[in-house]
Amino acid sequence: MTEPWWRTPFPAPDESAAAAAATRQGELTKPPGSLGRLERIAIDLAGLQGVERPALDQIHIAVFAADHGIAAEGVSAFPQAVTLEMVRNFARGGAAISVLARELGARLEVVDMGTSVDGGTLDGVRRVRIAAGTANFRHGPAMSQAERDRALDAGREVASDAADGGAEAFLGGEMGIANTTAATALACALLGAEPRELAGPGTGLDTPGIVHKVAVIEQALEHHGWPTAPMRALAALGGFEIAGLTGAFIASAQRGVPVLVDGFIASVAALVAVRACPALGRWLIATHRSAEPGHDRILAELELEPVLDLGMRLGEGSGAAVAVPILRSACAVHAGMATFAEAGVSRG
Amino acid sequence: MTEPWWRTPFPAPDESAAAAAATRQGELTKPPGSLGRLERIAIDLAGLQGVERPALDQIHIAVFAADHGIAAEGVSAFPQAVTLEMVRNFARGGAAISVLARELGARLEVVDMGTSVDGGTLDGVRRVRIAAGTANFRHGPAMSQAERDRALDAGREVASDAADGGAEAFLGGEMGIANTTAATALACALLGAEPRELAGPGTGLDTPGIVHKVAVIEQALEHHGWPTAPMRALAALGGFEIAGLTGAFIASAQRGVPVLVDGFIASVAALVAVRACPALGRWLIATHRSAEPGHDRILAELELEPVLDLGMRLGEGSGAAVAVPILRSACAVHAGMATFAEAGVSRG
Repeated sequence: MTEPWWRTPFPAPDESAAAAAATRQGELTKPPGSLGRLERIAIDLAGLQGVERPALDQIHIAVFAADHGIAAEGVSAFPQAVTLEMVRNFARGGAAISVLARELGARLEVVDMGTSVDGGTLDGVRRVRIAAGTANFRHGPAMSQAERDRALDAGREVASDAADGGAEAFLGGEMGIANTTAATALACALLGAEPRELAGPGTGLDTPGIVHKVAVIEQALEHHGWPTAPMRALAALGGFEIAGLTGAFIASAQRGVPVLVDGFIASVAALVAVRACPALGRWLIATHRSAEPGHDRILAELELEPVLDLGMRLGEGSGAAVAVPILRSACAVHAGMATFAEAGVSRG
Repeated sequence: MTEPWWRTPFPAPDESAAAAAATRQGELTKPPGSLGRLERIAIDLAGLQGVERPALDQIHIAVFAADHGIAAEGVSAFPQAVTLEMVRNFARGGAAISVLARELGARLEVVDMGTSVDGGTLDGVRRVRIAAGTANFRHGPAMSQAERDRALDAGREVASDAADGGAEAFLGGEMGIANTTAATALACALLGAEPRELAGPGTGLDTPGIVHKVAVIEQALEHHGWPTAPMRALAALGGFEIAGLTGAFIASAQRGVPVLVDGFIASVAALVAVRACPALGRWLIATHRSAEPGHDRILAELELEPVLDLGMRLGEGSGAAVAVPILRSACAVHAGMATFAEAGVSRG
């Protein structure tokens, strides 16, 4: 039996490039350590990109969208039609991630992994459409193993095209009404955590809504027997956009492209990927801490410390996009500052 | 007796512009509140700029530099010559703030408020030079009241020129070997705080160095009788660059230009300004939480919550400059996103 593509070993970060970057940080005209997190970012990116002076001019943003059968359980504050409506909004440039992508000069690709209503061909939207949304995972699997594999493959293709296009980082976003429910169920299964510990308001549930969401997730986890194998759990409880992100994250790292991880749902996709491929962890950069309460637990498990904490909880990759200028600033000061010797500045 | 210029009343933020911005935030294609802090930033800036859709394309960065007589007490990890060396580095483009200003497309102005050695005329440096550094405030006032007033006036002129030039925000930075000692002494006097509660490593003191710094500040505060009147404390314990920032912050707000407050020293200058002119507080935007331990206490006193927490402690306005893209992202999504009606997206 052949190994699936996502078992292919990863490249290791380039330790000598990271060491050269660390040396350079010590020579720049500032007290050692005074740029705080920016220094670590530059050194980490140097290792990932294999150059002393990394850059993030070319960012590829891909937003994976899909619908969820679990929405039938009344677990979202928004109707399911919003997923397709937002796909159109992304493509037409009106969504937050559309605006942010323009500001960053980044390519924004929207991937229709399977909305419940087929919106037809749309400019700027890649049609994958595994199915018209997942099945309701309360009483059965969200998707078949074949569907999961097609979703992973689609993510791989998106990431591979991004790498071919010269992306210096891959930024994955998602959209899918009810997908915090799927992501929470998946995280609970992989972490052995109680749904009440991780479930949150998503797009805006009130307390009774969250209590109902917790009950739905508990029933689903009982039904599926709390699966702990990551790819099995992904098929049982996940979503097409989550599987797409998982595949894209793994494929990006395999190609040596650093991954910018957005909020709660993207982090759960990263958790699935890391459980399947532990070496992936070093390729992930956590960009922001989501207001969704379960995010902290996922970040801790991934041993990631996000760059920003702005109380965002929109998804779409928006928090990661807001963090990109911080990463770019880290690269800019690293590459552009004078050394003590160049500037004729005395050392302490 | 005429009132000093800094007693002139402030404009009030435009409540109707802020209300219009808040209404718009509720209509954009996202769950209410899901952009977190970005929403509050856009609404606050709308009030300060008096428009529904604020912008921060034009940022004026001014770095005030001066030397400190207290450096003779051995309170810094760097020699005093570094102040002038860094002034040259700012002007030649090699410092962190130089690189960040270029990235932001922002004007960077360096203001020589009085280095111990006169560097002569330098391109891009405004010569003010109140004196060749302050006096050692351990046993006497750092500056006379006349010198303080000239420093405040210089700050006012810098801010006024920035406003005349169309600045949409004023970003003030500082450079001055030993200026965390002056800023800490000033903060202790104004807050009635013990030096050991606020003093930190500055550019990189070790623990014995910090203990010595605390002792020097304690002796100075005893000598000066813990002055609580802000402008009197500023003359007794401050620095020319701190006074320049204080004047610039007050004058910016008087001109209706929002102030981006950098780290520990800039925040102490803001504290002096707010104690002198309480209405100033609404014009301040805290950009980052410094690693200097006293900063939290100053921020709490100013009732400001910084946008970033990256462990930076460089000064120069660098933390504020790193935060500018976040503020710009807040403006961009606020101005550029589609409303539910425009995009044909269903509400929850």
